[in-house]
Amino acid sequence: MSEVLEKIWQHQQISRVELVEHTGLTSGTITNLTHELIELGVIREFEAVSGNVGRRRVMLGFDSRRYRIIGLDIGRATMEIVVVDLNGKIVRTIERDMSDRKGPDDYFEVIDPLLREVKRDIESEGYTILGLGVGVPGPMDYGAGTLLDPPNFPGWKNYPLRSVLEQKFGLTTLIEDDARTSAMAERWYGLGRTTQNLVFITMGIGIGGGVVTDGKIVRGTNGLCGQVGHMTIVINGKMCDCGNRGCWETVGSIPGILSRWSGGNSMEQLLAAVRAGEPEALKCMEDTLSYLETGLINVYNLYDPELVVLGGRLYPYLADYLLPVQNHLRSRLYAFAKDRLNIVPSTYGTSQSAVGAAALVFGFLLSEPVRLLALTEG
Amino acid sequence: MSEVLEKIWQHQQISRVELVEHTGLTSGTITNLTHELIELGVIREFEAVSGNVGRRRVMLGFDSRRYRIIGLDIGRATMEIVVVDLNGKIVRTIERDMSDRKGPDDYFEVIDPLLREVKRDIESEGYTILGLGVGVPGPMDYGAGTLLDPPNFPGWKNYPLRSVLEQKFGLTTLIEDDARTSAMAERWYGLGRTTQNLVFITMGIGIGGGVVTDGKIVRGTNGLCGQVGHMTIVINGKMCDCGNRGCWETVGSIPGILSRWSGGNSMEQLLAAVRAGEPEALKCMEDTLSYLETGLINVYNLYDPELVVLGGRLYPYLADYLLPVQNHLRSRLYAFAKDRLNIVPSTYGTSQSAVGAAALVFGFLLSEPVRLLALTEG
Repeated sequence: MSEVLEKIWQHQQISRVELVEHTGLTSGTITNLTHELIELGVIREFEAVSGNVGRRRVMLGFDSRRYRIIGLDIGRATMEIVVVDLNGKIVRTIERDMSDRKGPDDYFEVIDPLLREVKRDIESEGYTILGLGVGVPGPMDYGAGTLLDPPNFPGWKNYPLRSVLEQKFGLTTLIEDDARTSAMAERWYGLGRTTQNLVFITMGIGIGGGVVTDGKIVRGTNGLCGQVGHMTIVINGKMCDCGNRGCWETVGSIPGILSRWSGGNSMEQLLAAVRAGEPEALKCMEDTLSYLETGLINVYNLYDPELVVLGGRLYPYLADYLLPVQNHLRSRLYAFAKDRLNIVPSTYGTSQSAVGAAALVFGFLLSEPVRLLALTEG
Repeated sequence: MSEVLEKIWQHQQISRVELVEHTGLTSGTITNLTHELIELGVIREFEAVSGNVGRRRVMLGFDSRRYRIIGLDIGRATMEIVVVDLNGKIVRTIERDMSDRKGPDDYFEVIDPLLREVKRDIESEGYTILGLGVGVPGPMDYGAGTLLDPPNFPGWKNYPLRSVLEQKFGLTTLIEDDARTSAMAERWYGLGRTTQNLVFITMGIGIGGGVVTDGKIVRGTNGLCGQVGHMTIVINGKMCDCGNRGCWETVGSIPGILSRWSGGNSMEQLLAAVRAGEPEALKCMEDTLSYLETGLINVYNLYDPELVVLGGRLYPYLADYLLPVQNHLRSRLYAFAKDRLNIVPSTYGTSQSAVGAAALVFGFLLSEPVRLLALTEG
């Protein structure tokens, strides 16, 4: 069933005959499985007119009429809620600045009423909510559903986020590191229809990474796989919150960049000074790009992904430099691999992690549709 | 069948009843599969006496009486041939210094007669050779079975190694990057019985890495996954053969270390000078360990493996420093993960890659026994 759903997702619209071809299942099996999925409201039939003769064919696609998924991103400076249908269409977005708030109680003062309102609205329109996906700063304890000790995120140490959310809202709840939710946004709704081996790098107040291999999140033994922001870039450099020295995050995140420039305290100001040719600002930007290049070359030589996606609140300030950075990187990669370098901006901008949080639930639906729907009924 | 073989390998000796428990297959299926595997000569029955009452039980284990595997390592300074039985026991080892040889023709002058002799001896003793596994300096083109342009290994660019070996020796031939074969030696014959998520780091003339996740080699999109020696450790550092600057290999390999010391030209001399307290030698060793620590912290924060295994010709010179390096690393890791740090020396020392080359063929036998045996018959 999972395989059939994955094929439908890849093709967006596909006939039963094509499903038989692509899965190798018998047409009887396809008939039964698609019948069941239609009954469940996960997929539906469309009539498509194809070719010159205008022959009508019955196609299958995801059904956006019965279910909704909620994605929630709890960030260091913002929180965002998105509502997504089964076609990956974002039907609602709510964003709030959280930069003056600190710790779970303070955050839930904002989140609680908004999420209750969203839930009520979806249900009053007659939709069923499949689940709540949540992106938060990592690392976390996946078994317990708690945050561990996220750097630069005071008050959240050991917070039992998953069980709190489940109790508050009564929804199937999946939580994940925000760099990994961001990667999942590409994997399911963005660029992942064509490539399922990617590294997402989110740069903002911190720098995080989400590694997707063969379409699956790779977490590592302690949930630390993909902590690209905590690779040492400056040997014997500044102490980092994580315990290491000279991490990319200490020099390449927004605070890291601004700590190397005395002329102001925002990226807007830095960029204006760079445009005005201010020498210290130029040096700061040059070093920032050098750190970025080093981070990226290490990502290539360690993970060798098909695709690197850059996102986060820092990215827009560096976007103009992406082309020269890529050209420079090509000259530093193994010659045979240099033409395959592929670095692109994220599809959903500042909503990336919230959309990816919803994508977590969508991924669960595709891998275990019957189990998720049973949880939803219960 | 693959699952049954994997369970037998994990337990070394296991009864049919335990196989039913561990696989969830029916006892009828286990009876049939084990019968077939016994007929094929892959496994055999043993009688084991267990418990106080001395009850006799029929156990199953791998059969070392019918098959042999040959492992070949083609290195930058040595070549080695090992012969391994199906229990992973090394029954023969041949090693040759190759430091005055250059390029395939020169190497095959040595390899050809030795490998022919080994093959003839195995066959004259009545064994069947399952295949030839080969470790070589990467990167390589796996589809074509050719080397690409390995750094510091002149004359081998684009060499069609797999087809040449197949034609010369008529054996099923698998080729792999030598850091990955080294990792496979642990995965199948070494420490991998208890942990299947490991990174092997081989340090010698070059520095390479082999990443094993859930028991499988991870190659990446271009075969570059795990090129740990080519992560930038010294920003804006020395040019490396790979195209990048400041790679760990440029400062942390044997030539990289010796390039930072003017007092001699061997690791033995450097270590003697360190013991004698010669200041430049002490500084060189201190920096070497700092680079090693940085390399290792990056490996942890990027891959988060259960186990890191260190090997290669450099390792013995650094072995005495492993404990302080580990202690220092613990203080630099995320606090919650620091007790799980586990770095150990390789099981097979200088024979690691050759043993791992044989392990490639063993892995193929376990995943597709019928296909490999059919190739062997043909």
